[in-house]
Amino acid sequence: MNLKPIKVGLLGFGVVGGGTYSVLTRNAEEIARRAGRDIEVVRVATRTPSKAKAVFGEALPVDDDLMGLVSDPNIDIVVELIGGETLARELVMQAIAHGKHVVTANKALLAMHGNEIFAAASKKGVMVAFEAAVAGGVPIVKAIREGLTANRIQWVAGIINGTTNFILSEMRQRGLPFETVLSEAQRLGYAEADPTFDVEGVDAAHKLTLLASLAFGIRIQFDKAYVEGITALKQEDITHAERLGYRIKLLGIAKRRPNGIELRVHPTLVPASKLIANVEGAMNAVLVKGDAIGETLYYGAGAGAEPTASAVVADLVDVTRMHTSDPENRVPHLAFQPNALADFDILPISEIRTSYYLRFTVEDRPGVLADLTRILADKSISINSMVQEQKGEGSAAIIILTHEAREGNVVDAIRMIENLGFVHSSVTRIRLENLS
Amino acid sequence: MNLKPIKVGLLGFGVVGGGTYSVLTRNAEEIARRAGRDIEVVRVATRTPSKAKAVFGEALPVDDDLMGLVSDPNIDIVVELIGGETLARELVMQAIAHGKHVVTANKALLAMHGNEIFAAASKKGVMVAFEAAVAGGVPIVKAIREGLTANRIQWVAGIINGTTNFILSEMRQRGLPFETVLSEAQRLGYAEADPTFDVEGVDAAHKLTLLASLAFGIRIQFDKAYVEGITALKQEDITHAERLGYRIKLLGIAKRRPNGIELRVHPTLVPASKLIANVEGAMNAVLVKGDAIGETLYYGAGAGAEPTASAVVADLVDVTRMHTSDPENRVPHLAFQPNALADFDILPISEIRTSYYLRFTVEDRPGVLADLTRILADKSISINSMVQEQKGEGSAAIIILTHEAREGNVVDAIRMIENLGFVHSSVTRIRLENLS
Repeated sequence: MNLKPIKVGLLGFGVVGGGTYSVLTRNAEEIARRAGRDIEVVRVATRTPSKAKAVFGEALPVDDDLMGLVSDPNIDIVVELIGGETLARELVMQAIAHGKHVVTANKALLAMHGNEIFAAASKKGVMVAFEAAVAGGVPIVKAIREGLTANRIQWVAGIINGTTNFILSEMRQRGLPFETVLSEAQRLGYAEADPTFDVEGVDAAHKLTLLASLAFGIRIQFDKAYVEGITALKQEDITHAERLGYRIKLLGIAKRRPNGIELRVHPTLVPASKLIANVEGAMNAVLVKGDAIGETLYYGAGAGAEPTASAVVADLVDVTRMHTSDPENRVPHLAFQPNALADFDILPISEIRTSYYLRFTVEDRPGVLADLTRILADKSISINSMVQEQKGEGSAAIIILTHEAREGNVVDAIRMIENLGFVHSSVTRIRLENLS
Repeated sequence: MNLKPIKVGLLGFGVVGGGTYSVLTRNAEEIARRAGRDIEVVRVATRTPSKAKAVFGEALPVDDDLMGLVSDPNIDIVVELIGGETLARELVMQAIAHGKHVVTANKALLAMHGNEIFAAASKKGVMVAFEAAVAGGVPIVKAIREGLTANRIQWVAGIINGTTNFILSEMRQRGLPFETVLSEAQRLGYAEADPTFDVEGVDAAHKLTLLASLAFGIRIQFDKAYVEGITALKQEDITHAERLGYRIKLLGIAKRRPNGIELRVHPTLVPASKLIANVEGAMNAVLVKGDAIGETLYYGAGAGAEPTASAVVADLVDVTRMHTSDPENRVPHLAFQPNALADFDILPISEIRTSYYLRFTVEDRPGVLADLTRILADKSISINSMVQEQKGEGSAAIIILTHEAREGNVVDAIRMIENLGFVHSSVTRIRLENLS
């Protein structure tokens, strides 16, 4: 890289701050290949510096001088991860006043003070990036803001609070009441000690307010949002809904109507056949309906250290690419800079590893399974499950699911199986991916 | 808008060319608010100008001078939608040589000649944008290239050919053999007269090759891809897979391994519980696994005039925003330019329109349903379905699903229902969205 590193200051070093530093460090090489230059954390300020000091030792300045960081002339981008509205607002406004670009994950801050913050940033010519503020790592801000620009967006409907989606999933799948599942969610760390913001829908409404602005090009108007949580929801309604072919989800819905915009968060029945109805646990998903593209869905982890850091760091790369705006440093065609492409080998198909479904017909007599399993074992192919199905007249279909194995070995094993005297068909082979 | 319009030349005026012009025209106002300036088609060249002439009349120059268009000094961006590899390559290279930015939907072109084309564009300092080349309108190129830049991407697995996904969905749901469903797909326009490129997996492999380059930062290497289509797939394997808890999908898979990259298209069993296994019909979806974000999925229409145009026009907006790269014209915070925000009203909750699930307990005697339906009719609420469930001791639960109605009217009707003598409970009300 010929350019100097971009210098980042971290405000806050909690879960997301730690995750951001981990990801930036672990993936530094690939990130620099994408951004066109290194992205370096050069200073950390947090109200409780002890944890950060344990991580950085003497390697990096760590203190509690939050205001000092936002005015540090050595810093290009300030990452605000302290949360809350009052101090965060003051810090972000000061950072902008000092000409810093800002990256933030703070939805409450933007839902309450976004108009003021964006106006100040526009005036100063700096960027305020906030991909991490909605649906964690899912790049939904970018999708709406840049990916769907051709569309008149008709509505957005999102599962944008993982805590409540986890609770609703457990209530449905295990038939437990709200209070029981909430306690469990708190024990597992999916819900806060004071869960009000999540279960009453406020957090979802913060995010929805931002999505509505992006979708319809309107100012941020959190005070106009209708907010209803899941605390009143009864198990029997979940059951009735299911019998009728629906799931109940806490949706944030923003819809364009001839007379204005609907902006509302509340429990909602959704047809069980829709993809979004099948988003379970703490996952997030946002469904966007545009007049040109139709329905399009974006799914992923909405919270957690590294998923949120994924969005924070993507914003850092975005700001870096735009900050360095000569043609060589625009978003590169192949995601990485042209002079930073890798020369990994593409593997021949025989060298790939996956699982396999094998089906063939055998004579139904003793010793068949012993011979088959010996061939597979010799080729280091381990069996996940095997089904034998009678086909009448002394023959049987064998269906085998394997664990992950090398394709070349599977091809060899298939040849050997087809040569066995008691095998009466060729072997049908389909690859199987658990995608996990 | 203070800036002059960006001037676009369209090469080709088939399905996607027509869709692109429709979307640009219909949504011109919103698109300009997003891009910061108008985007204008100023010239069209196509090998068969008659159709385009019927649309444009004298309003726009239309001819068959493809080479004339790419060297026209009046044009800023060339949109290549003629397809194929030979002529398209020559036109794109000439457009670049003349300093034009290029937007293309041509996956075959980029899978075969992308390395050469991107090198020429980088040298000349112009952009070649290709969102429409993979998964139609789904902004998957942007998601990987810009949204997931924090991640070391581990694998990408996509349903990236709508024709084959339609065929597999029909084979499973209706128990029909491949040949029958293919004929139907051809009749419905989901498959071409010569379906080879789709059913043999070549089209998916073109797209997968591009995704792999974006995900791993490698040169485009279509010749190394393993390609296996769905023509050999038997109905009974779909049935067996289903019994075992799997669906069979034609997946394009690109996976990072310690010894290289797996790059392969083939029929694949996928656990039925995964979201991607439930992507049916001609829809596309791409699942990306990154080390920070985990699994994230992108879903939408992979083909068709306007879904594809959605991606072409998004690229036009992207190129326009970057072409005009002073701070005022970067990607705006709220997707639209700050001075172009709209002042739509946010509707009060009473003015929203949605469907409703209502549940309450009634005395089980004649006339109950008549009174209830009269109240609903008086309030312009029409009933989609009604279930009455005995609860013993002469009482019954009533569950009603309504069609779309005004919330204020539903609130009134609930108050009236709760005041009826034979109603023994309050009314539980949950909103219902069909999301379609």
